[in-house]
Amino acid sequence: MTRYLELAESLGQRIEQGLYRAGERLPSVRSLSLEHGVSLTTVQQAYRVLEEAGLATPRPKSGYFVPDERRLPELPRVARLAQRPVDISQWEDILELMRSRPAPELMQFGRGMPDVVSPTLKPLLANLARLSRRTDVPGLYYGDIQGLRALREQVARLALDSGCQFGAEDLVITNGCIEALSTAVRAICEPGDIVAVDSPSFHGAMQTLKGVGMKALEIPTDPLTGISLEALELALEQWPIKAIQITPTCNNPFGYVMPEANKRALLRLAQQFDVAVIEDDVYGDLAYRYPRPRTLKSFDIDGRVLLCSSFSKSLAPGLRVGWIAPGRYLQRILHMKYIGSGATATQPQMAIAQFIAEGHYPPHLRRMRSQYQRNRDQMSAWVGRYFPAGTRISQPLGGFMLWVELAEQFDSLELNRRLLEQGIQIAPGCIFSAAGKYRNCLRLNYAARPCPELEAAVRRIGETAAQLLSESEPPAPAISSDVPAPG
Amino acid sequence: MTRYLELAESLGQRIEQGLYRAGERLPSVRSLSLEHGVSLTTVQQAYRVLEEAGLATPRPKSGYFVPDERRLPELPRVARLAQRPVDISQWEDILELMRSRPAPELMQFGRGMPDVVSPTLKPLLANLARLSRRTDVPGLYYGDIQGLRALREQVARLALDSGCQFGAEDLVITNGCIEALSTAVRAICEPGDIVAVDSPSFHGAMQTLKGVGMKALEIPTDPLTGISLEALELALEQWPIKAIQITPTCNNPFGYVMPEANKRALLRLAQQFDVAVIEDDVYGDLAYRYPRPRTLKSFDIDGRVLLCSSFSKSLAPGLRVGWIAPGRYLQRILHMKYIGSGATATQPQMAIAQFIAEGHYPPHLRRMRSQYQRNRDQMSAWVGRYFPAGTRISQPLGGFMLWVELAEQFDSLELNRRLLEQGIQIAPGCIFSAAGKYRNCLRLNYAARPCPELEAAVRRIGETAAQLLSESEPPAPAISSDVPAPG
Repeated sequence: MTRYLELAESLGQRIEQGLYRAGERLPSVRSLSLEHGVSLTTVQQAYRVLEEAGLATPRPKSGYFVPDERRLPELPRVARLAQRPVDISQWEDILELMRSRPAPELMQFGRGMPDVVSPTLKPLLANLARLSRRTDVPGLYYGDIQGLRALREQVARLALDSGCQFGAEDLVITNGCIEALSTAVRAICEPGDIVAVDSPSFHGAMQTLKGVGMKALEIPTDPLTGISLEALELALEQWPIKAIQITPTCNNPFGYVMPEANKRALLRLAQQFDVAVIEDDVYGDLAYRYPRPRTLKSFDIDGRVLLCSSFSKSLAPGLRVGWIAPGRYLQRILHMKYIGSGATATQPQMAIAQFIAEGHYPPHLRRMRSQYQRNRDQMSAWVGRYFPAGTRISQPLGGFMLWVELAEQFDSLELNRRLLEQGIQIAPGCIFSAAGKYRNCLRLNYAARPCPELEAAVRRIGETAAQLLSESEPPAPAISSDVPAPG
Repeated sequence: MTRYLELAESLGQRIEQGLYRAGERLPSVRSLSLEHGVSLTTVQQAYRVLEEAGLATPRPKSGYFVPDERRLPELPRVARLAQRPVDISQWEDILELMRSRPAPELMQFGRGMPDVVSPTLKPLLANLARLSRRTDVPGLYYGDIQGLRALREQVARLALDSGCQFGAEDLVITNGCIEALSTAVRAICEPGDIVAVDSPSFHGAMQTLKGVGMKALEIPTDPLTGISLEALELALEQWPIKAIQITPTCNNPFGYVMPEANKRALLRLAQQFDVAVIEDDVYGDLAYRYPRPRTLKSFDIDGRVLLCSSFSKSLAPGLRVGWIAPGRYLQRILHMKYIGSGATATQPQMAIAQFIAEGHYPPHLRRMRSQYQRNRDQMSAWVGRYFPAGTRISQPLGGFMLWVELAEQFDSLELNRRLLEQGIQIAPGCIFSAAGKYRNCLRLNYAARPCPELEAAVRRIGETAAQLLSESEPPAPAISSDVPAPG
């Protein structure tokens, strides 16, 4: 990462964390130049980045200040949910979203696609090409059902960052995180079982429950601190819950990081009621804060947490390489993996293992974290500017997803239909709820670097949403017109 | 394919088909040279190939003859099976087999690995390398859940060869055939359901049944004509069977091709009792006969057949590209695919679609069919030579697997253990039965080109088997010895 971006990132983090208050003067260009041993131009470039992200305001002849009014839209509301297990619906809407393919003519805000054009990914592509040219073509052979050992070793090493201590033998490589989640659910649950989920919740994880015929119990979830532990405890007392399925770190779609104390408390509840925990950590490495937050798994003392993750968000989803650390359920997971899809393709595993071993992963993560954090600020500012008054948004601390809530009567499915005609796609909120809640919400992907076309598209979304809202309100009394009656 | 191999293949097929009888004189070198417009040397090379395969014997000054005694070992016996649904066992033995990785020091006869060193695969590798070098790196993006349209179009075109008429929209691309089978089972069955299977049967397909908690009803199966239709009908009358799971073409492990009349009759039974049919056709393109045999699916008029296949046997398993033509179950299969592993990796799909579109698939198949057929004869001859008297073997008409049956008290699990110490692995027979039958059988892979090391390994298997058999017989009376009693 270039020097000025590093500086912008570290300054930006301090501003985000509230180390400088609104209206406060930021360090002078000269003092930062001396402190960090960089040129004045570098500091000025860094400040320009912060300015664009809305984190610093220049005042003529006085330097840079924390903006007086970092007026962010309000947070989404905690949903009122039916406190009973429900059958999972919404499959048709998800299928529609999933089947739309990347096309030059479609602005896709709906899917979980990361930015894959970063130059820090180049060594990975070089590895892939090199492996295809090798004469012994290891990618043509069946691999180990458990996954390439060299990759499992690297994943185990990386997991130390999230506080986990497990070895290569405790991991199974999967086809993306979705297969990790799918084998997890199948390993511990049977049709008719009840699984408690955060709400809103990743649609893929909920559909895996549906696929095995399970019921979801949606637990109210705070947009800053995550699943309500009180509501969860009540549910555990009331219902024969088999497992808790949850994304506690860089949550999808809310973007919160559950506080460490809450993570510990959740695990105590799981122990007390003897239920398994399926932890989705797929965005965990993209937490804006460094070092990254700990996983639930890192507090797990009796192997009840099945940690599911992948390189689909941190590197690229098309590689289809994920993993699961299933604790006490390893044998059952191996069976599910064998019958689900057999061994995972060898070549991408080798390419990623090399990429990590050669030290390319941390600088890539640094770059993406910083890019996504800046993008979040830009996207939040755009939504604040272009969406109807009263729109609420999440405050993600990682990943690249913004949750947007509109007035109660708003219909994001209809919004999506109208936007598709204009070549824009969003994720309607209802697919994030087992019972089809959140119809007045939507999720926006902000992975791509801001550009005028993106801003124009966000503006179109806001305008279309406003139009839709005005239609859903009672029409104003008609003004007499001179249009002649039909002849 | 070079000219002499083509000639050897066509002559060899005629000998196999019995157009020349044992002891009969084969066409002279000169007449074949004239008939086919090739040089005398080419014909002589072709005859040398046939000689090596045991299909032609030279007699000095008289030319080539069909060998007098193509004395093949007898066929395996049809198993006596408990005619009731059973829980599926054997997972531990399969896991052991699956987790053994290709290693230079291990002679692997146990797995379903094709020969991937054929030069006809080179264009495929070139495609893979080229795709990795492209700057737009399509392999990094999420693909369509249903699979790359260009590949589905090619698969639909190829399926015409097996009598099938379906379009790209009727197909779903999967991670190998195992995911096709797995989604099929999950789409139509629920825990506790009964599925009728051929016996012996592919262990992966049976373990998918186990994974969903189903029971298998093993139907007696003839090593030449396949599943007994009488026994199947009886079972359908007696039990609430949900589906029939079967590999009718180039069966694994027997290698038979079910006669077309039997295929039609099986489908009539399925209609009469209104059950679904899961058809595994993964070796179908490797039938030695050309054009290849028709699939059950090609006779399916009401969408009840779920045709499962892949390029794992015909190209290379490490690519993990399979497909399913699920008939009336398409929507449910899409759901199972989405939650099972998400979209299949894009890059291998693109590489294969190009490989087929550029016309490389048929010549590759021709070469592999002919190689596998010659290998079958060589492996059969070796087993006849090196295994204990009374050993029975299958007569495969496609693929690259030989089924070997020894005396009833024989224990192939113990054989495998002893062989592993010598760096050799086989597939023990019991994993091909839900109830652990066929312990006295084993399956041998003959995909690799014959060489002295292979012959030595087959000889070691035969000798170890003989030793094991002699141990299992009552020991001969001890001869007095001079060994002193322990002091």
